[in-house]
Amino acid sequence: MPTTAPISGVLTPNITPVDSAGRVDEGKLRGYVDWLIDKGVDGLYPNGSTGEFVRFTPEERRRIVEIVVDQTAGRVPILAGAAEANVKETIAACDAYGAMGVRAVAIVAPFYYRLSDQGVYAYFRQIAQTVSVDVTLYNIPLFASPISVDTVVRLASECPRVIGIKDSSGDLPNMMRMISQIRPLREDFSFLTGWDAALVPMLVAGADGGTNATSGVVPELTHAIHRAVVGGDIDRAMKLQYQLLPLFDAMISIGEFPEGFRAGARSRGWDLGPGRVPLSDSQKDAVAAAQRQIDDLVREFVEADSPVMPHDTIDKIVQQVMSQLKI
Amino acid sequence: MPTTAPISGVLTPNITPVDSAGRVDEGKLRGYVDWLIDKGVDGLYPNGSTGEFVRFTPEERRRIVEIVVDQTAGRVPILAGAAEANVKETIAACDAYGAMGVRAVAIVAPFYYRLSDQGVYAYFRQIAQTVSVDVTLYNIPLFASPISVDTVVRLASECPRVIGIKDSSGDLPNMMRMISQIRPLREDFSFLTGWDAALVPMLVAGADGGTNATSGVVPELTHAIHRAVVGGDIDRAMKLQYQLLPLFDAMISIGEFPEGFRAGARSRGWDLGPGRVPLSDSQKDAVAAAQRQIDDLVREFVEADSPVMPHDTIDKIVQQVMSQLKI
Amino acid sequence: MPTTAPISGVLTPNITPVDSAGRVDEGKLRGYVDWLIDKGVDGLYPNGSTGEFVRFTPEERRRIVEIVVDQTAGRVPILAGAAEANVKETIAACDAYGAMGVRAVAIVAPFYYRLSDQGVYAYFRQIAQTVSVDVTLYNIPLFASPISVDTVVRLASECPRVIGIKDSSGDLPNMMRMISQIRPLREDFSFLTGWDAALVPMLVAGADGGTNATSGVVPELTHAIHRAVVGGDIDRAMKLQYQLLPLFDAMISIGEFPEGFRAGARSRGWDLGPGRVPLSDSQKDAVAAAQRQIDDLVREFVEADSPVMPHDTIDKIVQQVMSQLKI
Amino acid sequence: MPTTAPISGVLTPNITPVDSAGRVDEGKLRGYVDWLIDKGVDGLYPNGSTGEFVRFTPEERRRIVEIVVDQTAGRVPILAGAAEANVKETIAACDAYGAMGVRAVAIVAPFYYRLSDQGVYAYFRQIAQTVSVDVTLYNIPLFASPISVDTVVRLASECPRVIGIKDSSGDLPNMMRMISQIRPLREDFSFLTGWDAALVPMLVAGADGGTNATSGVVPELTHAIHRAVVGGDIDRAMKLQYQLLPLFDAMISIGEFPEGFRAGARSRGWDLGPGRVPLSDSQKDAVAAAQRQIDDLVREFVEADSPVMPHDTIDKIVQQVMSQLKI
Repeated sequence: MPTTAPISGVLTPNITPVDSAGRVDEGKLRGYVDWLIDKGVDGLYPNGSTGEFVRFTPEERRRIVEIVVDQTAGRVPILAGAAEANVKETIAACDAYGAMGVRAVAIVAPFYYRLSDQGVYAYFRQIAQTVSVDVTLYNIPLFASPISVDTVVRLASECPRVIGIKDSSGDLPNMMRMISQIRPLREDFSFLTGWDAALVPMLVAGADGGTNATSGVVPELTHAIHRAVVGGDIDRAMKLQYQLLPLFDAMISIGEFPEGFRAGARSRGWDLGPGRVPLSDSQKDAVAAAQRQIDDLVREFVEADSPVMPHDTIDKIVQQVMSQLKI
Repeated sequence: MPTTAPISGVLTPNITPVDSAGRVDEGKLRGYVDWLIDKGVDGLYPNGSTGEFVRFTPEERRRIVEIVVDQTAGRVPILAGAAEANVKETIAACDAYGAMGVRAVAIVAPFYYRLSDQGVYAYFRQIAQTVSVDVTLYNIPLFASPISVDTVVRLASECPRVIGIKDSSGDLPNMMRMISQIRPLREDFSFLTGWDAALVPMLVAGADGGTNATSGVVPELTHAIHRAVVGGDIDRAMKLQYQLLPLFDAMISIGEFPEGFRAGARSRGWDLGPGRVPLSDSQKDAVAAAQRQIDDLVREFVEADSPVMPHDTIDKIVQQVMSQLKI
Repeated sequence: MPTTAPISGVLTPNITPVDSAGRVDEGKLRGYVDWLIDKGVDGLYPNGSTGEFVRFTPEERRRIVEIVVDQTAGRVPILAGAAEANVKETIAACDAYGAMGVRAVAIVAPFYYRLSDQGVYAYFRQIAQTVSVDVTLYNIPLFASPISVDTVVRLASECPRVIGIKDSSGDLPNMMRMISQIRPLREDFSFLTGWDAALVPMLVAGADGGTNATSGVVPELTHAIHRAVVGGDIDRAMKLQYQLLPLFDAMISIGEFPEGFRAGARSRGWDLGPGRVPLSDSQKDAVAAAQRQIDDLVREFVEADSPVMPHDTIDKIVQQVMSQLKI
Repeated sequence: MPTTAPISGVLTPNITPVDSAGRVDEGKLRGYVDWLIDKGVDGLYPNGSTGEFVRFTPEERRRIVEIVVDQTAGRVPILAGAAEANVKETIAACDAYGAMGVRAVAIVAPFYYRLSDQGVYAYFRQIAQTVSVDVTLYNIPLFASPISVDTVVRLASECPRVIGIKDSSGDLPNMMRMISQIRPLREDFSFLTGWDAALVPMLVAGADGGTNATSGVVPELTHAIHRAVVGGDIDRAMKLQYQLLPLFDAMISIGEFPEGFRAGARSRGWDLGPGRVPLSDSQKDAVAAAQRQIDDLVREFVEADSPVMPHDTIDKIVQQVMSQLKI
């Protein structure tokens, strides 16, 4: 895959496994990476929000990317979360990850302080004009300074290194506003959604893919969704989206994020460790109770797997449809 | 049309024309109703937010429904906004509108005070168990107490008179949550979106239609969108949605709502009067400047009309597609 | 009292008593007015938020003011809530209330729609330049369009009829920003707070008084607070504020507003009827349970009454302190 | 000063000076610390929000505390910001700062992710039960997960190591709710406000002091405010608060926080370097323009200094008043 190919499909913002002592669990991480690639994810996204990047040290963050790059060995592209304490540190991380061979870095807008539109612009511009790796902007207004549509358009126009946006706002009209203004200027620009609950509508509206936490639990389902939309079978895609939604709702609402997705991984046989944020006793009870509900939802999905999922079959149908439609 | 038919398609929440003295302009209203029906709207919705219902007196609100019902003469169904100062007054308005022959009333959740979920439930339940006309819930959390998904599901289960929801939140996953829980219980329940910027995605997700202010300006376009989705041509529907969005954005952002839609109507030859909220001098200047931009957008649409719009042709294609697909 | 005296002290935004059939209970209203005046409130404010003005019809709102004016018979000034459906109706209500003899009207910023700063300015300016009665602006951003500090300053500068603001935002620095800009221009301008939880700090910062729902339940306490601040005994004022806060917290959080204040009035022997918004069964249970808590809090206050309250004594002390301090 | 003395007065959350290469400027930091202590601040608070703690590396943060502790040499107590990436790292920083001799650490609630009340409780509890230094909670809901009143009360009850709260919410009634519930249990507990715009009202309501960014620019003024309130001269305190407010408003609104306070320091002769967040060209222009306004405001204050400020005189007066009042 040439490094200029636009990023598309569903990438997994992977949970970072830790061992019982709270250290990054390298073996588990390597195994989980293999499983995800095996199940059809279109890329990996270490050090995302689901990967709890802010709860690791700078050294740990680098080690995490190193392991993921090494284990992936070029099978799928890697988008590495590279936000550090300030512009200088962030640039150093970007260049380090570029040298490791990631497809691009993803940089969340500055957080803690809420920066103005101007400040967000100045921040990304300084980075984009300095680094030697492709950059995707990461907009998650719930947690970080919002990146406005105007700022995304301006950065896309001025900075060739900025090659995409991951938008976790869930704001569909804003996604359309960005697509309609940037597509005519930049064919290589990727629009990725991080809001799993609206994955199909975003893809139908023209997004290239998503980086979705649910793909770390049911990668077959998110893969099938993407293939269905690409194949033009919107009806089927929406049916799958209606399967995804209750699972997403169950996992997003348990304990502290991303505890529910950790529970989801356990349902698939992956015990990724205890997480890095302490839970109160009542939260631990709630997670235990929710685990059973998530187990049921995942089991239902896995058992229904064959009629709904077999993605070889799906891919064949998609190819037929596309050749007929000459899309 | 039997009164039990589910409400579907795109209904116009029509602006209320006023004369230079600020009174309801009956002649203009009758003419505007004829034009809208002629252009293909699937229903009318007097006394909605676009109709500035809170800026008219109770007597004026009744007169407005009376005129619209009389002029429509059964050509399209009417959904009449019926919220009054309190439960007793609202029930009286509902029954009056029912006697006039409206298909249903639409009742916005209590506003000014933000009621709790329990309070919203108690309010709608008391009305729904008393009135002798079908009721649609109107959720617009920007302006009124929010109606939660749980409350909509509960009311749909308990109250046969509640036959639909108009949701103007623009929250697509919430729309899906309502559809997935209510559809199995109530085949007759209508899901309508009031957020024009997401009309196609909402329809794709299973909504039956919308009550959309843009349909009062470009009824051909919203009609074509609905037909395209019904006909399964999602590609075309999204292209039309991309046409609708800049027009919606231009109209929603001028002066005070619904001033921009009034400007849009002027672009189509309908001068519906000055509106009921005073504007500052600088706002008047801004509206005048925006009028030119809206004129341009509307002209572009009207001139592109023939290739894109002729809805007889569209309807024919839709019928062909649907017969082929045996949907 | 000359009509140009600035409004000061604590005014009661009185609950509107209704009978078992839901009609305005004139006898109860007259009795409650007498009790409040007797207990030392500095004015009355019918048709405020606590009076549920939006839940009454225009005709009922006029009747309520009429009764309060008649019963008060000039003993204390009256500030009458006069917001109606639109500018024309509001102006008519203002003039009617002026003719009845109210000290001023209070007009809440437009609600339901959130108007821009410009729109809020244009609305109040048009009213203030037309009416023949003094006007206080009513800022309650939780429920209605916010009135910015700049807009208040501009209206105070341009419109002699605008003689005060009731601010229920609880934003103390904003109160200081208004006072520091308007006081030098307008000695007659009244700054009133509607946020009981910060009454003492607002008074210490220079506010002239408040219109406070708690004064409808414990008028002796709010009166004592005002006298203590005027007398310079901030220590005592803060002690009383610490008494007021838990009572306010208990009453603000029950059922739907102003249900808790209705419960508070019951604790003082005033059954003001069922309120105009339906409650769910679980809400009714919650109110019943809270009634006991409020009874306890009020009883504690009433029993502690003599050492803390006797306002003749307080007034004497205040006069002594003031003459000593030559304030 | 015994380590069990409650923290009181106004502490400076000091800006971290950087040199032209962006490194921590040790010499400037030592000089600035001396100047602040000389001007009467009651303590220092390195690695606060004003100190841009999140924009420095873990190693830099430790070095900053080390320098401040060393330079202060016990003249005033130090409250060191100690939040790191996770519980383990935070505990290590706490213990390191404790060993250096700080009076206490201040720990902001987890940020980026918005934790639930339960999660915030679990986080602080785990830290407080492990560290060997006193801890103050830092509530700044604008930037980090909110710490509810209930959680503060619970932590104060259960954890002797938790000896105070710095609250930057500006919510005065919440401050009162905390004081009324915690004071009876914990005489040693410190209530500090971080919202300069409401410093006097917070002190009047019973807060022990503040950690206020304005004290890094006009330490004489914040000192005088605290002394005036302690001395019971609320009138004078409010006059000074009215002086402080426009200065605070000017500094809080320029460029990105804390750029305006950096400009304020420049007005006092302290060029603390360029800051760690890039500014756009238009932001740089805005800062330059605002610098003149801030210079004027500070000059006005410095020139009015002698009548208002000389704190020896103030202290004498305060002592006289206090001895008279036998407070």
